[in-house]
Amino acid sequence: MKTYGVSNVNVTGGYLFEKQELNRQTTMNAVYDFFSESGRIDAFKMDYKDGDEKQPHIFWDSDVAKWMEAAAYILEKRPDPELEAKVDAIVDCIEKGQAKDGYFNIFFTVVQPGDRFTDRDYHELYCAGHLMEAAVAYAEATGKTKFLDCMEKYADCIYRVFVEEKSAKFFTPGHEELELALARMYRYTGKRKYLDLSAHFINVRGTVEEKLKGPYNQSHVPVREQREAVGHAVRAVYLYTGMAALAKETGDEELLKACRILYEDMTTKKMYVTGGLGSTNIGEAFSIAYDLPNDRAYSETCAAIGMMLFSNAMLSIENRADYADSIERAIYNGVLSGLSYDGKRFFYENPLEISLTDRSVNTDTRYPAAQRPTHFGCSCCPPNMNRILASIGAYIYGLEEDALYVNQFIASELSDGNISCVMTTDYPRGNTISIKANGVNKIAIRIPGWAKSFTLNKTYVMESGYAIVENDGGSVTLTLDMTPEALYADCRVAKDVGKLCIRRGPIVYCAEGVDNEFELHSYSIPQNFSAEVIGDGQFGLPELSVVCERLLPYDGALYSAEPPKRVPATLRMIPYNSFANRGLTDMAVWIHASR
Amino acid sequence: MKTYGVSNVNVTGGYLFEKQELNRQTTMNAVYDFFSESGRIDAFKMDYKDGDEKQPHIFWDSDVAKWMEAAAYILEKRPDPELEAKVDAIVDCIEKGQAKDGYFNIFFTVVQPGDRFTDRDYHELYCAGHLMEAAVAYAEATGKTKFLDCMEKYADCIYRVFVEEKSAKFFTPGHEELELALARMYRYTGKRKYLDLSAHFINVRGTVEEKLKGPYNQSHVPVREQREAVGHAVRAVYLYTGMAALAKETGDEELLKACRILYEDMTTKKMYVTGGLGSTNIGEAFSIAYDLPNDRAYSETCAAIGMMLFSNAMLSIENRADYADSIERAIYNGVLSGLSYDGKRFFYENPLEISLTDRSVNTDTRYPAAQRPTHFGCSCCPPNMNRILASIGAYIYGLEEDALYVNQFIASELSDGNISCVMTTDYPRGNTISIKANGVNKIAIRIPGWAKSFTLNKTYVMESGYAIVENDGGSVTLTLDMTPEALYADCRVAKDVGKLCIRRGPIVYCAEGVDNEFELHSYSIPQNFSAEVIGDGQFGLPELSVVCERLLPYDGALYSAEPPKRVPATLRMIPYNSFANRGLTDMAVWIHASR
Repeated sequence: MKTYGVSNVNVTGGYLFEKQELNRQTTMNAVYDFFSESGRIDAFKMDYKDGDEKQPHIFWDSDVAKWMEAAAYILEKRPDPELEAKVDAIVDCIEKGQAKDGYFNIFFTVVQPGDRFTDRDYHELYCAGHLMEAAVAYAEATGKTKFLDCMEKYADCIYRVFVEEKSAKFFTPGHEELELALARMYRYTGKRKYLDLSAHFINVRGTVEEKLKGPYNQSHVPVREQREAVGHAVRAVYLYTGMAALAKETGDEELLKACRILYEDMTTKKMYVTGGLGSTNIGEAFSIAYDLPNDRAYSETCAAIGMMLFSNAMLSIENRADYADSIERAIYNGVLSGLSYDGKRFFYENPLEISLTDRSVNTDTRYPAAQRPTHFGCSCCPPNMNRILASIGAYIYGLEEDALYVNQFIASELSDGNISCVMTTDYPRGNTISIKANGVNKIAIRIPGWAKSFTLNKTYVMESGYAIVENDGGSVTLTLDMTPEALYADCRVAKDVGKLCIRRGPIVYCAEGVDNEFELHSYSIPQNFSAEVIGDGQFGLPELSVVCERLLPYDGALYSAEPPKRVPATLRMIPYNSFANRGLTDMAVWIHASR
Repeated sequence: MKTYGVSNVNVTGGYLFEKQELNRQTTMNAVYDFFSESGRIDAFKMDYKDGDEKQPHIFWDSDVAKWMEAAAYILEKRPDPELEAKVDAIVDCIEKGQAKDGYFNIFFTVVQPGDRFTDRDYHELYCAGHLMEAAVAYAEATGKTKFLDCMEKYADCIYRVFVEEKSAKFFTPGHEELELALARMYRYTGKRKYLDLSAHFINVRGTVEEKLKGPYNQSHVPVREQREAVGHAVRAVYLYTGMAALAKETGDEELLKACRILYEDMTTKKMYVTGGLGSTNIGEAFSIAYDLPNDRAYSETCAAIGMMLFSNAMLSIENRADYADSIERAIYNGVLSGLSYDGKRFFYENPLEISLTDRSVNTDTRYPAAQRPTHFGCSCCPPNMNRILASIGAYIYGLEEDALYVNQFIASELSDGNISCVMTTDYPRGNTISIKANGVNKIAIRIPGWAKSFTLNKTYVMESGYAIVENDGGSVTLTLDMTPEALYADCRVAKDVGKLCIRRGPIVYCAEGVDNEFELHSYSIPQNFSAEVIGDGQFGLPELSVVCERLLPYDGALYSAEPPKRVPATLRMIPYNSFANRGLTDMAVWIHASR
């Protein structure tokens, strides 16, 4: 399907709209302020001199670019002269700081001039990619092309160096991202050269000897031969997104097949129930299949965001509702957990368990953090949060022939020439979604993979996870069974054996120590538990009071031939994405299962 | 009770006798050879010069002393001119190397001369303690007193420096051990001064400001005020042993009370089911109560040995069978796990779980080792294994008034003037113990705390865990129910919730990957499981084939609302102490419990 971007869609209300507003009003400023304080904004002035205090880091361009991209999405929906002025000021710096041949990189201009394109590991092309994404978004949003012009020149420069002259000391990006950005440049400008450059990087990857050639950055074998998601998880999903974008534009079936296999590998062997990817901090990477530790999860916020990008790219190729399921799983759980409820603090890694009494986890290693800091030295996640929240509109609708696809349930309006749609819902607080579309013959509504049952007020046929109804111009109303439900993991996931987690609709729940009197590991929940749904909760989503059991401690003994006694109990649970908002406390997604 | 030492007891057969023989024939040589190669033996020649290759380390004296102590126990039972010559050669060096004022320490004589008694952290008094223990044992074994004479001089020197002159730069041992050694010196020589010196160190501990004053080495508060086992686990149990020895000799009720409370704290809150102590590698220390991780267990071999020393010291004060239970638990499980089946390799830390697919445990930290190395830089555990195995006889019998106490079930002969006893048993392979004693009116036979039932061929009364029978000169035969049984942990032990372990008599079992087709975490065992006991096994003890269930993987899904299916299965289990003898493989003591 053709997926609609931010331009065509207004998000109008509901839970994610509130998050968008929080992002616009608070998180954007929090990130900008840290970027100012840390020197990232002023670095664009290119006046750093050896010995100055704030030496630009190799990935600073990308940090700011992601924030600029987010600003673009916001400006597209609503004038904000102050925000626009901030972006324009940076764009002016970029224009001024850009080399005559089109090259633009802060670090390699002011810190290590003369070393440009010599070190694959220095995030140079990664920064280029994020700048290009931002430039396209800014042109789309404002119609102003100065930024895009600069980035076209830079893309031309890269094309010259890597394709024509072959004068760089390496061949492909050490940290992928430029591949998907170039596809985006191509789509917006129509210039085939950018797609060719993207294809060049994708096709050369893994075929040549260069620094850091290996699974860490997915260059161990040619991309079409890759069958398992390996290495740095963010790099991986960015690469896969680029591969999918290229496959869509070129119809390259072999490349698409590799994408499908990698998607399958991630979602059936290496993904947390929260949509998190990359379970180990060693290389911020995928571990082996089924190695998904909860307490020591890495599950970087950026990787869950990357999963949304990749899934949306796949969805734009083939109408499979499970891609939209993956987007939904990530945004509501492993992405939003990266942001504090006040919008000012961030998780880089997103553990699924915090046990403050487990000293083997919490004192001898730096991770996982059990509280969100305001920023990081490597601050990739916060501006990624900015742009994903600002661009939520881009995940809702798609068009294939005469059918409008509804991929996500978010109150919104779509407008595309004579095609329009209004979706009314309080999902995922509520379970009813009303859709009224014009200009299309059919409406294809995603039935979530998690939904045990649903009702539609129209006749429908199911196709690849979508309920397809003939559009008669009236409201189509979908009601989803959102009774809280137990979810189990495959028994190869060692840490989840004997446990279950609770999901209500797309929301994965967790228990926090602060809400519960006894240690979280002493509770156990039966499969057919009953739960009271409690209001809309302090975190904008229902909380749950789960009827369960609790183990009693022995009286004096440490070990006994008698199993611990069980007594009735209730366990209060909150959405996983809202954990760690009330001080340092235990947390668990996976709770022992009663049988 | 008066507990009988090695002198009065011959171990004559059975499982622990075989371990003694392995120690005598193999382990003693393996340790001596490494000590030779590493320079530890030659270091006693005191001819090290700055810049020489093998610089003596601060704890080398103690390593060798423990081996010498073991040699003494062996020589006491059986002439071995070669072994005796090795010890005598070291004793000659000690005599030659000892300073005129009695001081003896290799490091502070040849590496940092002039710095004696200046640094509490340098194991100086710890080394002294082990040398004194060895000297007493050697005098007892051989009647030769040269070594003991040297150590008496050294003890006199320490008394002078720490009690009379108060000229040292610190006040109490940084690593406890001397306290218990001095009590032993007192008992053997009858010289009150040594007990006074022990009392001095124990009484001053925690009352003065000195380097490293804190919980790490149990000097945070005066010992009589200590209520929780904290800090470095080996130091702790060595201190507690010294405290108990002092309490026994002085009748100090306050000190005894502290010992009881610390014993209780360890055994009801901080002890692995294997008798291991000290669950965290951070400081090789006790963690907080109930924090007993299996995969990241530290559980140092020396700490389990120390638990035997402390429990035996407590048993010598009060006739409580549970002290003997603790000794039995440790020796058969967390101590013997420290030695490979071939007697040549050692565990320093003793994990209760190895999961090679859990990359969060096995790749980012140095511990726990999943295979036994031949030696360590800090090689305290191997010679401790030497001496504990050589001195097993010292844990079997006790005498209180007219009653002979049988604390451990080991085929053996006791001889003490007109008192004698012969114990015949193949325990813990078999479950029958026959005891025939002369010269006592009563026989008090420990009934293990784990025994659900037992039969005795005589009438008896129970007292503090002992079955007391009138001695009629005939054989007393005890038969213990050693049906394999499930054991559960208190629910505050987070990592054991929902799991059980299997014990047959005193032997804790584990499952190893090499014996079982499927991942160990996919098996679950019901409380009333049936198990086939398989022969005497490759490790000298029965193995078990446990009838249980196994989870089936999902077909393609990672998460599902349906719990994984269960199918009947059997799990092969071996004694925990024998794990890691057949290459790198998974291991688990705690297995999921079916309900």
